[in-house]
Amino acid sequence: MIRQALDTLKVTTRGRGFYEVTREVQARVADAGVQTGLCTLHLQHTSASLLIQENADPDVRRDFEQFFARLVPDGDALFVHTAEGDDDMPAHIRTALTSVNLGIPVTGGRLCLGTWQGVYVWEHRHAPHTRSLVVHVMGDDE
Amino acid sequence: MIRQALDTLKVTTRGRGFYEVTREVQARVADAGVQTGLCTLHLQHTSASLLIQENADPDVRRDFEQFFARLVPDGDALFVHTAEGDDDMPAHIRTALTSVNLGIPVTGGRLCLGTWQGVYVWEHRHAPHTRSLVVHVMGDDE
Amino acid sequence: MIRQALDTLKVTTRGRGFYEVTREVQARVADAGVQTGLCTLHLQHTSASLLIQENADPDVRRDFEQFFARLVPDGDALFVHTAEGDDDMPAHIRTALTSVNLGIPVTGGRLCLGTWQGVYVWEHRHAPHTRSLVVHVMGDDE
Repeated sequence: MIRQALDTLKVTTRGRGFYEVTREVQARVADAGVQTGLCTLHLQHTSASLLIQENADPDVRRDFEQFFARLVPDGDALFVHTAEGDDDMPAHIRTALTSVNLGIPVTGGRLCLGTWQGVYVWEHRHAPHTRSLVVHVMGDDE
Repeated sequence: MIRQALDTLKVTTRGRGFYEVTREVQARVADAGVQTGLCTLHLQHTSASLLIQENADPDVRRDFEQFFARLVPDGDALFVHTAEGDDDMPAHIRTALTSVNLGIPVTGGRLCLGTWQGVYVWEHRHAPHTRSLVVHVMGDDE
Repeated sequence: MIRQALDTLKVTTRGRGFYEVTREVQARVADAGVQTGLCTLHLQHTSASLLIQENADPDVRRDFEQFFARLVPDGDALFVHTAEGDDDMPAHIRTALTSVNLGIPVTGGRLCLGTWQGVYVWEHRHAPHTRSLVVHVMGDDE
């Protein structure tokens, strides 16, 4: 029988950087009692995003930060929308270049992630924020 | 009981820029009679994309245009595929850097969008186009 | 009646480049016997991605490669994570700039793709790889 569960995870960030949520999302899938189905993640913000990336070497995240800081520089003179500071518009653009929602199939009660894949909330603002991540699970209980 | 609805929205653009469709998509969710479920949007094109972004300050969209025009310049000598003009290949790349599909959970009959999130069709071609946006809703009527 | 099917496609790549999987994915949708529903694709890797793009002119793919090679250069001195070579970190970033999962509605037993849309696995590493693509289909058999 098809069942659904919907929950909102609060993710507290300490400013720009990566915050892994794989375990918390997997726990929601388990709670939902879904064996085969689909897990959809939606981050309700425009200045933080979701990223599936390597969870082994921390240098990967460091290099991501370096690359994106060069690609979308804080305080770029191009930007007019600077109401909330130098990192305001860059945070929106970094979000658009990545994503705010993901759909991950579920099998055997587990997210179908690859061996090296972790799910991260990528905070793009320098200040700490509390981010809301909607976790929706739909599928069969067998 | 799980029900589904599938519809195609026609979005008329006046050339490069952002066209908000949040209200139209929400209306399709209401028509579907789904209270809890998932709304999937798929734009059937390769030179326009979907973006969830801030719907408050219009400067945000202006800065997006400026940034992407610099990142993927029209008429870049790098490009060979120029059959439809200077903005042809840049439109494909801008589409790839953003997305053509989104999955947004639904609760209480409404899209789970954040306070500042709006759903936009981002037209990347300079000429006006009619874009087809498939809206699929699947979920429970209670 | 809602039914589901989940399968893993193995995609053998010969190094960096585009590998179309539209036909294989469509075949899984047909096998699933789903007429109306949702097909979710998830690539279980962090150095290859999924892209929906034009499947007519091969120059489009050539221009994509040229553009991304310039945007995220192999061997960029910025990168610390180079354990697997010059194309290691660029492959992660190219993956993040595009996507590893897609949700495509299904109607009349077929993926709702636009006329010019093809689904590609984009291999970002220079060496050949075998990539795992999870294909999940959920929907109604009528």
